[in-house]
Amino acid sequence: MPTTVDPRVAVTWIERVAGGSRKRTRDEIAIEEPLEIRVDGKPLAVTMRTPGQDEELAAGFLAGEALIGGPADLVEVGLTEDLAANTIAVRTASGLRRDPADERRFHLSSSCGVCGKAALEHVRVALPSPPPAPSAPMEPQVVLRLPDESRRAQEAFERTGGLHATALFEADGELLVLREDVGRHNAMDKAIGSMLLAGRHPLPGVVACLSGRVSFELVQKAALAGLAGIVAVGAPTSLAIELAEESGMFLCGFVRDGSFNVYAGASLVRGA
Amino acid sequence: MPTTVDPRVAVTWIERVAGGSRKRTRDEIAIEEPLEIRVDGKPLAVTMRTPGQDEELAAGFLAGEALIGGPADLVEVGLTEDLAANTIAVRTASGLRRDPADERRFHLSSSCGVCGKAALEHVRVALPSPPPAPSAPMEPQVVLRLPDESRRAQEAFERTGGLHATALFEADGELLVLREDVGRHNAMDKAIGSMLLAGRHPLPGVVACLSGRVSFELVQKAALAGLAGIVAVGAPTSLAIELAEESGMFLCGFVRDGSFNVYAGASLVRGA
Repeated sequence: MPTTVDPRVAVTWIERVAGGSRKRTRDEIAIEEPLEIRVDGKPLAVTMRTPGQDEELAAGFLAGEALIGGPADLVEVGLTEDLAANTIAVRTASGLRRDPADERRFHLSSSCGVCGKAALEHVRVALPSPPPAPSAPMEPQVVLRLPDESRRAQEAFERTGGLHATALFEADGELLVLREDVGRHNAMDKAIGSMLLAGRHPLPGVVACLSGRVSFELVQKAALAGLAGIVAVGAPTSLAIELAEESGMFLCGFVRDGSFNVYAGASLVRGA
Repeated sequence: MPTTVDPRVAVTWIERVAGGSRKRTRDEIAIEEPLEIRVDGKPLAVTMRTPGQDEELAAGFLAGEALIGGPADLVEVGLTEDLAANTIAVRTASGLRRDPADERRFHLSSSCGVCGKAALEHVRVALPSPPPAPSAPMEPQVVLRLPDESRRAQEAFERTGGLHATALFEADGELLVLREDVGRHNAMDKAIGSMLLAGRHPLPGVVACLSGRVSFELVQKAALAGLAGIVAVGAPTSLAIELAEESGMFLCGFVRDGSFNVYAGASLVRGA
């Protein structure tokens, strides 16, 4: 991610496909990076966040988990020079209000894919080798069609406006499965899990279509399933783009109104 | 949440405020409930999800965390009768591919507010007593104005399309703070943390305006900060509505184009 002015935004090169043409252009994307929150010298949590106001994030996180009661419980919150980047240290007046381990058991975490991992270097799980190159690049017409096909197959969303969807398609646009959930990570877990329970995993050549934005952990789930690429209605984050590129997947975002952006794997999407 | 046909959708009563009128009407909302995933007899994770296809969710989750390699690693995935509701049991052929605790340390979790809590009864943290009733109910005109005010204050979103925002307002509509992040929970943590670091916490009478949807954990964060209510551009989940009602907060959703729905705390929003 080359140029950065605002710490929340990076400028990157994308390929914009619109109205039968394709051109290389600059685009601004939201930065996503892990932050480790340490309390009284011990790692407590890692969250994927947009850099900036990390002191506020740490303080608000502790209050929102009922681990501190208010300002009086905090002595110091800050980035410390002897700590690694993306680490914030909190010093409390007299410890946390409750022992997190006391009333909950902390195991591998939930849908967000990066929770509970209290060391930055462990946010990424080991990825398999990149999927085999598909026999033919994706057709832009197919990319543009997937969100519409998904919406047609998506019943509950239209009714509640509250559900995310992940659909899996063959590279030629044939719908394999669509799943909906209040959590976008759950929708992807369900779609991939449905194929796995049918005995099909990994899924080379298969493309995921997402109803919303694309974060690091969604790309990680897709890469672990060996998918060929992701087509999303929303925007990807900086780390999502990096991981897609590394994993040999294509990543198309803002697929709507007859146009889209290719953020990674441009050679896997046919030129318009 | 009275009537349910589709396991993903509940029907509830709301008050719809539009064009100067207000009427009680039925609305469909997405159901959100915790699911505990147990592997070989031991609790592994809890995720907030929409019920349905829980076997697929468990299988996809394990694959997406590189804990299983494929179908051959699974012997059985199912809801078992001797387990509590909202629990799914997985039996593996020869254990998980890696010990989650081996390469990661599992502490209190990240932004989603419910991760790493491996027992359903512990998803909720203890809430403070309901906030004092505000001196006057919210004016519908103020509710309608908050999303526009937020968007005006929100710089990065317009550029990347990838950031969620939380803004805090006084009940009369005065903007206190706005924060953006790729994670909606982080945006709220930052906004509340900003006030906390300025010595102001809890925040009675203060209203949060969210750029997206409203889940259980966002309401929990708001309740712990003692907020008066939430105004959201998107839809709330079933559990978000229940917790807002229990916590004595109002919850307005789909605040857009001159109208909105009141899902909880109807007496705290003045009749049109």
